[in-house]
Amino acid sequence: MITSTANQKVKELVQLQKKSRARNQAGVFTVEGIRMVREIPKDRLEKLYMTEEFYNKCKCELPERCIEMVSPQVFSYISDTKTPQGVLAVVRRRRWSEKEIYGDGQAHILVLDNLQDPGNLGTIFRTAEAAGVTGLILSSDCVDIYNPKTIRSTMGAVFRMPFIYVENLPDAIAELKKTGVKVFASHLEGKNAYDRESYLGKTAFLIGNEGNGLRREVADCADVWIRIPMAGSAESLNAAVAASVLMFEVSRQRRQQE
Amino acid sequence: MITSTANQKVKELVQLQKKSRARNQAGVFTVEGIRMVREIPKDRLEKLYMTEEFYNKCKCELPERCIEMVSPQVFSYISDTKTPQGVLAVVRRRRWSEKEIYGDGQAHILVLDNLQDPGNLGTIFRTAEAAGVTGLILSSDCVDIYNPKTIRSTMGAVFRMPFIYVENLPDAIAELKKTGVKVFASHLEGKNAYDRESYLGKTAFLIGNEGNGLRREVADCADVWIRIPMAGSAESLNAAVAASVLMFEVSRQRRQQE
Repeated sequence: MITSTANQKVKELVQLQKKSRARNQAGVFTVEGIRMVREIPKDRLEKLYMTEEFYNKCKCELPERCIEMVSPQVFSYISDTKTPQGVLAVVRRRRWSEKEIYGDGQAHILVLDNLQDPGNLGTIFRTAEAAGVTGLILSSDCVDIYNPKTIRSTMGAVFRMPFIYVENLPDAIAELKKTGVKVFASHLEGKNAYDRESYLGKTAFLIGNEGNGLRREVADCADVWIRIPMAGSAESLNAAVAASVLMFEVSRQRRQQE
Repeated sequence: MITSTANQKVKELVQLQKKSRARNQAGVFTVEGIRMVREIPKDRLEKLYMTEEFYNKCKCELPERCIEMVSPQVFSYISDTKTPQGVLAVVRRRRWSEKEIYGDGQAHILVLDNLQDPGNLGTIFRTAEAAGVTGLILSSDCVDIYNPKTIRSTMGAVFRMPFIYVENLPDAIAELKKTGVKVFASHLEGKNAYDRESYLGKTAFLIGNEGNGLRREVADCADVWIRIPMAGSAESLNAAVAASVLMFEVSRQRRQQE
């Protein structure tokens, strides 16, 4: 059992928890809590750090080969949460292919431009899975999906939703259009209400930054600018909410057609 | 200018920022930042605390009668944010009537049962305004809408959206039904997909707690249980996302009928 915070593994873990660069170099990320740990694909689990108390409660459902015990003090030290459950996993990353992002049926893709809020990004992953999105494309300056707060708010969708970070969003959007995907920019200056469009064909939505919306050069790549009509004095929607309304409109239209 | 954190007004402000009880007793709440301050209805503004730097930038647009200057050190001390803008307002609360919650046209009401996340509640207020919700009814054990984090995420909707906290949600729902409001429970066990129902008449949605959903005794008050169909391995949606999808379905149906 590791009982000292000066232990080399503990030091490395803290780096993984706090620094995106350390996570990138190692090609892994961390998740905490039994609900998230249960969802890890078995072939991607590298290591499980846990307290004795947690081990005694849940051992039967965990693969022994990966387990490393740590003292409660050490666990508090490595944990990103205020009231840790006593289990933290190191998970290997996966590279998704373009084909996986397009999905088996009609493509339903979200393109995220410079999204900055970790909670928003996590919520978008979680909602995307529920709404039948086939994959996500993120600009390289979006917040890190492997941020522990983001990971938590995906509720496990991060293990299952195909996604890719790209350096050049306009290029990636051009690729989408070449394969017949119709690209809709969610924009406050959009002319058409979102629900007047058909999303039965291959569809992608461009979603912009929380404060500034889509960058002009990204919005200009879209086939159509759409808006979500708003009542009252509301000036805009939270980015995750706007994305959710659009994703579930696709889902609604496709279900009605079945 | 107030330059000491030992000043009595400063002590009271910190209580207002941190303690819901202090806010309740005083019948006020606090908001920070120029964007939120601009949205305060004039007759409800009690006091504006600001730094000299902020005053020199924005004085022309602020009512002199309410202004109290504080030093940058004192401002950092009273502020709830990491990088304060230098303006904090104390705002009087408003009691909304039942009539205001029902609105002028067809009622479109959200009923929130034991919602616990401050950000979720703020986002729901913000989205509700944009979706044309007429008012919100909250169980008394919901998170405090006057929590500074919640206030911030309403983006000003808290000043404009009629809402009320009630001790007994089943009684409040019974009242809704008496006036002809159809009550839909958003429930994972709902039989009908939400988009197969009509929301052209008076409508209310029951939205449950983030972890546990609706309490049984609350869900049982509904006329209909509905669900949002989910793809993949997704088990549930974030409460604010679920509420948003439902609210914008009402908005969509009512616009299409126009």
